[in-house]
Parts: sequence; structure tokens; C-alpha cells
Amino acid sequence: MTVKKDYLRPLDLRQGRIDMNHGAGGRAAAQLIDELFVAAFDNPWLRQGNDGAVFDVPAGHRLVMATDGHVVSPLFFPGGDVGCLSVHGTVNDVAMCGAQPLHLAAGFIIEEGFALADLKRIVDSMAAAAREAGVAIVTGDTKVVEKGKGDGVFISTTGIGAVPPGVAVGGANARPGDVVLLSGSIGEHGIAVLSQRESLQFETTIASDTAALHGLVAAMLAASTPGVRVLRDPTRGGLATTLNEVARQSGVGMLLDEAAIPVLPQVEAACELLGLDPLYVANEGKLVAVCAPDTAEAVLAAMRAHPRGRGAVRIGTVTDDPQRFVQMQTRFGGRRVVDWLSGEQLPRIC
Amino acid sequence: MTVKKDYLRPLDLRQGRIDMNHGAGGRAAAQLIDELFVAAFDNPWLRQGNDGAVFDVPAGHRLVMATDGHVVSPLFFPGGDVGCLSVHGTVNDVAMCGAQPLHLAAGFIIEEGFALADLKRIVDSMAAAAREAGVAIVTGDTKVVEKGKGDGVFISTTGIGAVPPGVAVGGANARPGDVVLLSGSIGEHGIAVLSQRESLQFETTIASDTAALHGLVAAMLAASTPGVRVLRDPTRGGLATTLNEVARQSGVGMLLDEAAIPVLPQVEAACELLGLDPLYVANEGKLVAVCAPDTAEAVLAAMRAHPRGRGAVRIGTVTDDPQRFVQMQTRFGGRRVVDWLSGEQLPRIC
Repeated sequence: MTVKKDYLRPLDLRQGRIDMNHGAGGRAAAQLIDELFVAAFDNPWLRQGNDGAVFDVPAGHRLVMATDGHVVSPLFFPGGDVGCLSVHGTVNDVAMCGAQPLHLAAGFIIEEGFALADLKRIVDSMAAAAREAGVAIVTGDTKVVEKGKGDGVFISTTGIGAVPPGVAVGGANARPGDVVLLSGSIGEHGIAVLSQRESLQFETTIASDTAALHGLVAAMLAASTPGVRVLRDPTRGGLATTLNEVARQSGVGMLLDEAAIPVLPQVEAACELLGLDPLYVANEGKLVAVCAPDTAEAVLAAMRAHPRGRGAVRIGTVTDDPQRFVQMQTRFGGRRVVDWLSGEQLPRIC
Repeated sequence: MTVKKDYLRPLDLRQGRIDMNHGAGGRAAAQLIDELFVAAFDNPWLRQGNDGAVFDVPAGHRLVMATDGHVVSPLFFPGGDVGCLSVHGTVNDVAMCGAQPLHLAAGFIIEEGFALADLKRIVDSMAAAAREAGVAIVTGDTKVVEKGKGDGVFISTTGIGAVPPGVAVGGANARPGDVVLLSGSIGEHGIAVLSQRESLQFETTIASDTAALHGLVAAMLAASTPGVRVLRDPTRGGLATTLNEVARQSGVGMLLDEAAIPVLPQVEAACELLGLDPLYVANEGKLVAVCAPDTAEAVLAAMRAHPRGRGAVRIGTVTDDPQRFVQMQTRFGGRRVVDWLSGEQLPRIC
């Protein structure tokens, strides 16, 4: 008898495709995990090879857990793909609670027949995004569904982060008189995905803004920990929906200044062409913050000094409004209510 | 102006269906979250209403994070459904690291057109399973994909647990001479799902064993914390695959006693009919443990005293085998190698 090899031949990462065996929990599944996922995400926790990852957490910190499913279509778009998006989205959800992201868990639901080359490209993009963000993908899961019962790959990521002592960021903390800050121009992610999906050609390629924002958040908290009251990333539903959520949670109104909200000219043009309002278009690398009035200038300066907040601006103030309306001073001097997104604007944008 | 209501009319939980708006991040999505998910899972963390949940963790404990996607088909089967399965599966992954589960995150990927009544049934089942297991679903996410791009509902759950000091459970810890224990009869979950899927009628209904096992694990660790070296729940790929994983991780062999492995007569009969080997059929409420020889009797007694371990038995021993073979003494006195599941036996079983 000779020593048995674990696998007879390596995965064919160029021509191979996912089949149902890769989800069945046997040898093919173990090979996929070893040669694709563990190879890309390699870290000591994942190498534990157990049902979960065991790790230490910094003493005296509260923890944050956030989860996000990623079903973006198409899977690859200008500026990113479902892989890096699934890291940035969850890192940002953790960061929006004022936390430093520590670890991620990743679950894959893959459609039978999906090309291993595409899966590798996505997994490598996740690994690069995680490395850049300084988080480790410590545990994971892979399921395979029959052709026609999924759509390429769906990725669920869950993040754990540590909230430094003294940080009290939450959607219910906005108070009348507070200042609303935005980290940069809006609408790029949604327009990038939509233009790829619909094969639209614009004169300039519009790239997704997908990026991890925890570094920016740390810089803002360093400028004023008690002054930063609310942090949100305006993803699905865009800036308008995010601000309505905060208004509802905090029981306040808001008054925005339309002229102050930055929109790239090419995004503006694409929105006009498509009949979209950039206020409702998803972002994946921007945040909105509500700050105490006396700290807003310091926080804004900290944002502008950070690469992810160079275009940061003050876009409005929190008002005392029992009706919790988000209103906007328009460019033409009028005032209009900025409502929730009431129907479907852009499906499967993240 | 009158005070606006958040929603014009409540969700129609009897006749309604999921549409793309429920995933778009606007008012319909907020309503679905409030009236269905928050109503069922209600807890202070979820009510924070932020992008993630903030919580304290017990001091001096390491943490475990485990994640699992649930794509079982059909969604409802004898003994359970995808809802309670998604709680039990992840609670068990956390417990198999020797940890006490604390919190869960849940992500839903729902197919357009899915009946709200079915979604409510699933969500209520999750809520009941979480309550029974003493864990809270503290944060979540909902996505909707177009009809034909999903399959009803997929649920990703991620769990966090605390590892008590002194616990050192892991798949790499089995040593030659250790004892292999099994908490009860095998194969019920896989056969229950398969019979529902294929509309098979057996004389007796075979119900899934889906259940949370952290209470059983706590009882085992109370009997001997250092004695419990490996814990695994033999889900996809069954007992055979799980033991091969442990043999690979620990660099050992195993010798099992076929006659000692309990299989219900109706499962045995169904497996014969279907040409399946119960050793490869998934379980969702059983665990296999590797224990130090001098503690095995105490751990076995603790298992038998617990409701989830009444049928616990000693099924074999760990051997010194550089080839890491799992072998079995058959009922007829022979010996055979119990290999990994090499192909697809039962797809979408969990």
C-alpha cells in the first residue's frame, strides 16, 4: 500500500466549472476549499480547519456584528466586482457602528456550471480587498445549487469589529442643530453597475466607488469621538433613503442644501439620460455623518485630510420636526421633501 | 399637513408575495424588515436599527465565529424547515468549537414571487429555534433576486460564541488511543429531506433530527474539559466524511465498529431502497466526539444523561496510521476502508 494522495489532480482553474459535487461536503468540496479559498485567504484562523474560527478580542471593547448578502448583477463591473464589494460592504457596515473591523466570515452560494476561472477572479479580489482593509476572512462556507436555481455566485459576508471605549455612534443619536456631512460625490456605484448591466456606453467610464471606509471613520473619531453621532453608508436606496432612516430613528427632520451635494458631471448626465435621481442611487465608498455643531469643522477637516474623504462637504443640518421630513433647499431657491425610495429603482445593485 | 404614516397598509402576510421592491432598500424593504423580521426576532440589539449590532462579550473568553449558508430543498420537510435548520446549523458549528453560542446574524436571499406566508412560517421557525437555543438574531440583511435567479429562499447565518477558559477543542487534537463517541443514530436528516423531495412514502415518517447541540456540548465539557479533544457535527457528507476530515487534520487513523453505529430500522430500510450508505447521509442534530481514553466513560455518561445524547455510544478508537485511513470492523468480521464521500450523494441537503 502507498500513502494515498488527498486529490488525484489539481482543480482546473482555467477550464473547470463548478459541479454539484463541490457542494456535497466530500472530497471535491474539500479540494475546492483548499485549492481556491484557503489558498487565497490564507491566515492562521482559517488554517485551523474547524467548523468555526477561534480568536481573541481586545479587552474592554464592545463588539459589533454586521452581515450583508451580495447579489450584484453583473458580477464584474467598472471599478470592482462582487468579491471586493462583499468585503467593502461588510467592513463598512461594521465601521458605521464606530468599530474597527477585526474579522470576516464568508459564505458562497454558487450556481452549478459557474466557471472556476471567474470564481478564482472573485476570490482573489476578496482576498486583496481584505488584505488592504487589514481584516482576515477567518471562516467560510460553500454551497452549490443546480443550474437555474441561482445566478453565478451570491456572497454573504459577516463582520466582527471592536468598538473603542467612548464611541457612541448610532442612527438614533441625531439632534436638532447637528450638522450633516457627506464624504464625497454620490451615485457612482449604482451608475457603474447599471451601465455594465445594460451595456450602456458613456463618453467617460464611470467606475464604482467601492472602498473600505474604516480608516476614514477612525480619522473622524480621532478628531472628535463624542462629536460623531451618526455614521451611515448610503448604499441601496442612496443618500435620500439613508437620511430618511436616520430621521425616523432619531425622530428629527433634516434640511439639505442641494447645491452642496457633489455629483460628478458624468453621473449627472447618466442619471438624466436614465431618468434617475442621484439622491437614490447606491454608493459603496461614501459615508454620511451627523456631528455635533461645535465639532463639525474639526471632523470635516479630518475627513478632507483622508484619501477617502477628500471631497467631504457639509450638506445640511438636522431640524426639529416631529414629522421627520427630510427637506431640501433646491438650486432654484425652492424647498422640496426628499422622500424614501418608494419603489424599485435599481435592483441587485449590491 | 398631517403626520405621515410610515406605511400606508400592513404587509399582506396571507396572500402577498415578495417583489423586487422588498430588496431595493426603500420603504417596502423597511416595512418587510419591521413587520416580519423585527416582529419575529425582537430583541434589544436588533431594535438598535443600525448597520450592525453592538454588544458586550464575557471578559476573558476567546470568541468563535462560524458561518453557514442554507439552501435545503425542499424548504419544508418532516421534522423541520430551512428556518430552524439555519439556526441549528450555525449554533452547532459554534458549539463544535467548544463555545457557548451568543448571537446570530441572518441574511436572506429571496426569490421574487416567494409567498410572504411561507416566509413568515420560516422566520417564525427561526425565531422559535433561536429562543429555544437561547441565542438572539441581532442583525440581518435581505436581498431579493428575480424569479428564476434563486430558489425560494436561501438563508446565511453567522454565529458568535464564547469559548470558556481551558477549553481546547479542535479537529487537529485527536491522538492514537483516543475514543470516538457518537451522540445517537445517524441518517435521519438526509433521508427526511430526500423523501420529501422525491415524494417517497415509507411506512413510518422519518423526521429530521435537526436540533441545537450546545447544551449537550456544555454537559460533555462539564464532565471533562481537557478530555474532550474533538467535536464535530456530521452534516453534509455524513459520519464517514466527518471522521475522514478529523483523521486528515490530526494525522491519525480510526478504527470503527460497524455494529456499534446506531441506525434506525426505517432509515436502514430507506437507505437500502435508495442505494445509500447511512455513513454518508447528513445529520443535523448529532455530534461525534474524540475523547482522551481515561475520560471517555465520564463523557459518555454525561451525554447519555442529556436529552440530545440519550443514544450516545462508543463507536471506535483513534489509531496510529500515517496513511490516515478510517477503517471499519464490519458486522461480518471483515475490515474495510471508509473513504471520503467522493461524489455527490445528496445535493442541497442543508
